[in-house]
Amino acid sequence: MSYFDAASAAPLHPVARQALLAALDDGWADPSRLYREGRKARMLLDAAREAAAEAVGCRADELTFTSSGTRAVHTGVAGALAGRRRTGRHLIVSAVEHSSVLHSAELLEAEGGAVTRVPVLRTGAVDAGSYEAALRPGTALACLQSANHEVGTVQPVAEVAEVCRAAGVPLLVDAAQSLGWERVAGDWSLLTASAHKWGGPSGVGLLVVRKGVRFAAQGASDERESGRAAGFENLPAIVAAAASLRAVRSEAERESVRLRELTARIRARVAESVPDVEVVGDAERRLPGIVTFSCLYVDGETLLHELDREGFSVSSGSSCTSSTLTPSHVLKAMGVLSEGNVRVSLPAGAAEADVDRFLEVLPGAVAGVREKLGAPVPVAAVQAAVQEDVLVVDALGKRCPIPVIELAKVIGTVPVGGRVRVLSDDEAARLDIPAWCEMRGQRYEGEQAAERGTAYLVRRLT
Amino acid sequence: MSYFDAASAAPLHPVARQALLAALDDGWADPSRLYREGRKARMLLDAAREAAAEAVGCRADELTFTSSGTRAVHTGVAGALAGRRRTGRHLIVSAVEHSSVLHSAELLEAEGGAVTRVPVLRTGAVDAGSYEAALRPGTALACLQSANHEVGTVQPVAEVAEVCRAAGVPLLVDAAQSLGWERVAGDWSLLTASAHKWGGPSGVGLLVVRKGVRFAAQGASDERESGRAAGFENLPAIVAAAASLRAVRSEAERESVRLRELTARIRARVAESVPDVEVVGDAERRLPGIVTFSCLYVDGETLLHELDREGFSVSSGSSCTSSTLTPSHVLKAMGVLSEGNVRVSLPAGAAEADVDRFLEVLPGAVAGVREKLGAPVPVAAVQAAVQEDVLVVDALGKRCPIPVIELAKVIGTVPVGGRVRVLSDDEAARLDIPAWCEMRGQRYEGEQAAERGTAYLVRRLT
Repeated sequence: MSYFDAASAAPLHPVARQALLAALDDGWADPSRLYREGRKARMLLDAAREAAAEAVGCRADELTFTSSGTRAVHTGVAGALAGRRRTGRHLIVSAVEHSSVLHSAELLEAEGGAVTRVPVLRTGAVDAGSYEAALRPGTALACLQSANHEVGTVQPVAEVAEVCRAAGVPLLVDAAQSLGWERVAGDWSLLTASAHKWGGPSGVGLLVVRKGVRFAAQGASDERESGRAAGFENLPAIVAAAASLRAVRSEAERESVRLRELTARIRARVAESVPDVEVVGDAERRLPGIVTFSCLYVDGETLLHELDREGFSVSSGSSCTSSTLTPSHVLKAMGVLSEGNVRVSLPAGAAEADVDRFLEVLPGAVAGVREKLGAPVPVAAVQAAVQEDVLVVDALGKRCPIPVIELAKVIGTVPVGGRVRVLSDDEAARLDIPAWCEMRGQRYEGEQAAERGTAYLVRRLT
Repeated sequence: MSYFDAASAAPLHPVARQALLAALDDGWADPSRLYREGRKARMLLDAAREAAAEAVGCRADELTFTSSGTRAVHTGVAGALAGRRRTGRHLIVSAVEHSSVLHSAELLEAEGGAVTRVPVLRTGAVDAGSYEAALRPGTALACLQSANHEVGTVQPVAEVAEVCRAAGVPLLVDAAQSLGWERVAGDWSLLTASAHKWGGPSGVGLLVVRKGVRFAAQGASDERESGRAAGFENLPAIVAAAASLRAVRSEAERESVRLRELTARIRARVAESVPDVEVVGDAERRLPGIVTFSCLYVDGETLLHELDREGFSVSSGSSCTSSTLTPSHVLKAMGVLSEGNVRVSLPAGAAEADVDRFLEVLPGAVAGVREKLGAPVPVAAVQAAVQEDVLVVDALGKRCPIPVIELAKVIGTVPVGGRVRVLSDDEAARLDIPAWCEMRGQRYEGEQAAERGTAYLVRRLT
């Protein structure tokens, strides 16, 4: 098996495993107790905090261990908003943040606050100017990921931190995807991360709140972790998290070069060997191990199953692989194709031979899925009829990628300059039809409400 | 070393360790993913939930894994209160609940809700009638521990559940101290527990919400754990928690008999071999492994250090061992002596020989501390002066157990029927002077505000 989904969870680093085992013996007692076992636990906790703080580049007393990266974000956002409640209740986030940040933003809206979602370029990156424009007198907090978890694009954190600093607004950086590689540059105010993304155990997140940042922890609390993470410390896992962060950092320089070459190879080879594919994300400013592409006329779930059968574990932002039947909010915000989406995220140590085998297998897997989906739908069977000067394709009730497949099948049957109107009630079509037009050099002319679903208008240009 | 503080945290059960190691290899991936590693993780998570639900006696879909017992309580109380917001904002708790419950109650008060703290008998037990009397039309929730964490007294949960059920009020049971021994009896509505109390790993709590109980999770959430515990599941630890719960349950019947005999031995022998000691808690309705006693004229912290030097790890509810300089709220609510307090909580498997050695060492350790504290304070040096018919002892600025020691030194110098007035600004004196009177057969006549601190009035009867 080749596990290529490190952006979801990385397998445990050997150093983490070793540290965890040692700490299970020495670090199970309550670190607030005065007896021998408690003092030993306290020493381990203090040492882990020092090590993690050193890796982050902060003071040990600015760093709290939480029970997950998600919990770190929820606590960090809520605490920072409450700490600046008097300033106002306006929050700025990018449109491509992790769901934990977006859920925090939705909670603020539900409680009467306001949220600005900063749009991104087609690469997935925000522009510091957009953050500057979003700042207003009542802005309590801004959030920006260090790098995107779905497409790997690195964000201009230092620049955004600067515009926030100039306006006196704290910036919370979700560093979940990048902290294992390097410190976050720039003058940020809060930082969150998650150990199981860098090869540490699950059950440990980091929340860093810089001295001087107003912060009021919300909900019930206790005396542990400066009142920011209630409950008995998950000490063996914390020890393992800190030890593995040091370990992956010591390997990061060499390993990042190696993975970057492998993902560059995937970017290039997929574009060559798979027809009708869009490789997404920034080609240069990106994380070493993540590469994402979308394949026209492909059902993401079926493709994932095919790849799983071939021994490759990858994830997808396609609507058909989510329980909500909506495509990934990241791909949506970028305006890129979501159908047949595949994210490859290589764990540290991923073997070159496995990557090469993936590149061998992929074109056939994509072709196989396309054949299954496309072949049994002869052009004649497409529900299309010319109404006035418009060819209408009725794709109602059909799920991604069928509406785009049907559009592609009929576009050649209208004259250049003619129009196709695709009726669809699939949420993914709203993203994928414009993306298809962009890829195919056709003109997308917008959507209209229809009797059922939505009508998407496409003019044939080529 | 003999670790006798299982009520804080139990060392990892061998089964937990084994399950954890296995799950580190098989259960690190995201259980929501469709590929092989994800499916394996999902199977482990489902099996752990089934096993834990079986041990609790609930349906698997009623059980949520949280990141700690404290988190389970915070989430459970907040969710249950919000779910019955329309009914009212009144909460009932016992005065001897774990701090996680009391912190939740304080949060409700800070937000404008009302809390009734049900008093306890001198044994530490509540009376079901007191809960019944506390119920009112706006009561949203009642909380009661299954057994007390400081003195081991078992609470009448089934009776309290019945009076709550009759009033249509859900009862949340904090079963942290007892779930490893047995299911919680009675018709409760919510239940919480903590794995590291039964020999599971830290980082895992349980929250059970019975079907039909109104519940609205508070704060930001995600799609994991029915929206009740956001963030990546701490799967290896969850697997270890469930496996060890099964394991300790299979040993519980035999082990509880054995530990109960050992703690009964401690109860009897301490009362015989240590002068001026009060063994607290219910002698019959109690947990198998916990026994707690308080020693007059002893500084708890010094005694803990002495015992630690002898190789015994125990905890204390004395004020001098807490960072806030206030005695344990449990001892306070029971009205028993808090000075020189020692809690012995035996882990499963505790050796009889270690208990016997503890009983050998204890009298000398107590005597040593008393000598250090008492010997250097000759009667002549006590700041006492007869004013009218009252002997005034000035213990201002002196910490527990000095005020009680000075009272004890002078009581013989006033005639029977005469009075002593102890001036003290130590919070523990409020509890310990009445407790001393109770133990010594003297009459406590109440307190008065003094120019500095508080004056405690004692009449000599014997």
